[in-house]
Amino acid sequence: MPLPAWSQIAWLPGHGVRILDQTRLPTSEQYLDLQTIEEMAEAIGTLRVRGAPLIGVAGAMGLTLDGQTGRRADGPMRGQGEILGALRRDAEVLRATRPTAVNLGWALDRVLRRAENTTGDADAVRAAVRDEADRIWAEDRAMCDAIGEAGLPLVPDGATIYTHCNAGALATGGRGTALAPVYTAFERGRRVEVLADETRPLLQGSRLTAWELGKVGIRCTVMADGMAASRLRRGGVTAVIVGADRIAANGDTANKIGTYGLALAARVHGVPFYIAAPVSTFDPATPHGSAIPIEERHPAEVLTHAGVPTAPTSASAWNPAFDVTPVELITGFITDRGLLAPGDLSRWHSV
Amino acid sequence: MPLPAWSQIAWLPGHGVRILDQTRLPTSEQYLDLQTIEEMAEAIGTLRVRGAPLIGVAGAMGLTLDGQTGRRADGPMRGQGEILGALRRDAEVLRATRPTAVNLGWALDRVLRRAENTTGDADAVRAAVRDEADRIWAEDRAMCDAIGEAGLPLVPDGATIYTHCNAGALATGGRGTALAPVYTAFERGRRVEVLADETRPLLQGSRLTAWELGKVGIRCTVMADGMAASRLRRGGVTAVIVGADRIAANGDTANKIGTYGLALAARVHGVPFYIAAPVSTFDPATPHGSAIPIEERHPAEVLTHAGVPTAPTSASAWNPAFDVTPVELITGFITDRGLLAPGDLSRWHSV
Repeated sequence: MPLPAWSQIAWLPGHGVRILDQTRLPTSEQYLDLQTIEEMAEAIGTLRVRGAPLIGVAGAMGLTLDGQTGRRADGPMRGQGEILGALRRDAEVLRATRPTAVNLGWALDRVLRRAENTTGDADAVRAAVRDEADRIWAEDRAMCDAIGEAGLPLVPDGATIYTHCNAGALATGGRGTALAPVYTAFERGRRVEVLADETRPLLQGSRLTAWELGKVGIRCTVMADGMAASRLRRGGVTAVIVGADRIAANGDTANKIGTYGLALAARVHGVPFYIAAPVSTFDPATPHGSAIPIEERHPAEVLTHAGVPTAPTSASAWNPAFDVTPVELITGFITDRGLLAPGDLSRWHSV
Repeated sequence: MPLPAWSQIAWLPGHGVRILDQTRLPTSEQYLDLQTIEEMAEAIGTLRVRGAPLIGVAGAMGLTLDGQTGRRADGPMRGQGEILGALRRDAEVLRATRPTAVNLGWALDRVLRRAENTTGDADAVRAAVRDEADRIWAEDRAMCDAIGEAGLPLVPDGATIYTHCNAGALATGGRGTALAPVYTAFERGRRVEVLADETRPLLQGSRLTAWELGKVGIRCTVMADGMAASRLRRGGVTAVIVGADRIAANGDTANKIGTYGLALAARVHGVPFYIAAPVSTFDPATPHGSAIPIEERHPAEVLTHAGVPTAPTSASAWNPAFDVTPVELITGFITDRGLLAPGDLSRWHSV
């Protein structure tokens, strides 16, 4: 049962995809109806749709939109070969918007494979594309639901969950990863509230996490990132739950910058610290955290806010997008295959 | 020898006080020439002048400005009694701007006492007021210089100092507290650079610390607060030096929110963590940190930036202005009476 009230992505009746424009949050809830490949590419490229799982879903759904496969002035496409070539060109337009987004490329390739394996005319290929996109979306929702169930015992009635960044519905096609246990507990009638780091520099915590929780009536208190250690010392925090960008074979976890400091403070104050992520986030090829490459983003993100300078032109900035939390600080992993202790990981990888 | 290039406060030739309008930083370096009590009250009340030591200096200098003591339409004041009454009323106007600022009240009272103990006419009292304000300013500069000397051995050639908030020249009448050892090392020809937390919610690190270091050519790199733990793990940080709002008898130290998390990360990564503050910041009447009251400020500071909402209206915020770093995490205290180890504090208090 999905939580109601809003939707990060949806099919439009007949043709087209509706997305929530995340760049307008938290002040405006504005939906965009996309009809063409170029419109979806713009939406992904400018972060109107963001979050690794969600841009995978959006990319797959985007392949149903008008592009090279659209009806031409000289009439509809007929042959399978003709539409496959067009689909591949459309996929490259979408792929180019976020070249490092592994999920996007994976989803596009999966839809293309399905199209290639479809016999029949252009309409049959179109139907297969839509069906595969629907499956990818449904699997993403099921992944979120499974994480919600796995984490449910960690969110008892009256729980206060601390989170960082946005690993919620706005980042996935479903109820999120880190926020999934919160939503599931709330749906089961448990009282739950969330403390959210604002998550500088891009403020995904205050802009996105606080927004989506507010939409369904879950109380959310925003904290400046530097307040975390004080808040954890104050007591009453049931657990920290955050998402993950990549989990090394030993359990070291890359996530949004600021996660590591939060994990240190949680350990000092005896607050359990969980990573919520699908098992697809585990990367057995990366032995430990120091082997995970950390993207450094433009200094302007730190030195400005909404285009307004917050520092003098003489200042420089360091702007790593992620940090690595060592497995020693992680109580457990809330996954779509259940709750895993750090010690379970090697067993899991050897399966 | 003062560092040149700019001034946080200065006497105007003849009459008046010039201040740097800190609310315009970091984008604009704008000085205001104040001639009246009301102008100084406005400047202090709206944080154009801020930082505990600096508002003490500004308040004292402010008592030389036109107010109740100004020349009336019916001619100049003549008697000592008349000008003392007027000075007391002026002092109350200034005191009311920041009622909890201990330093401001202390400086105003000190100037008033000096005026009361001055024999002679109104001009003699005016000269004494100006002289006492000058002494308070000179003592503040000397305090900063002494902290700079005490901390100098901690800033060797090639040092990288990590700081939080602004405990620099912009907060004092001199070269600051936490930044004093940096300036003194730089002045002696040592190569030194600074890493500064931006210090949400009010961004004193990016707006003020980065600005004043840039003015004299000291390299400053701004960090989002959540980056501190990652940066300290990366290595190459010589020491963390921060200021203090109040130091309890046992050494627990209240400072700007975010200091405690920084101290935890410094300890984990073996980086020495110093508090720089005049001994007047030690409060023997407060036995330990949990007895220090923590001011909670308006949630809007966390939920907005430059007036623009960063969170939905459904969100609340927790906004403590300070946190307490336990003495166990503090390597030493850089004071105007030298470098003190935590174990020296009880001896110091018993003197």
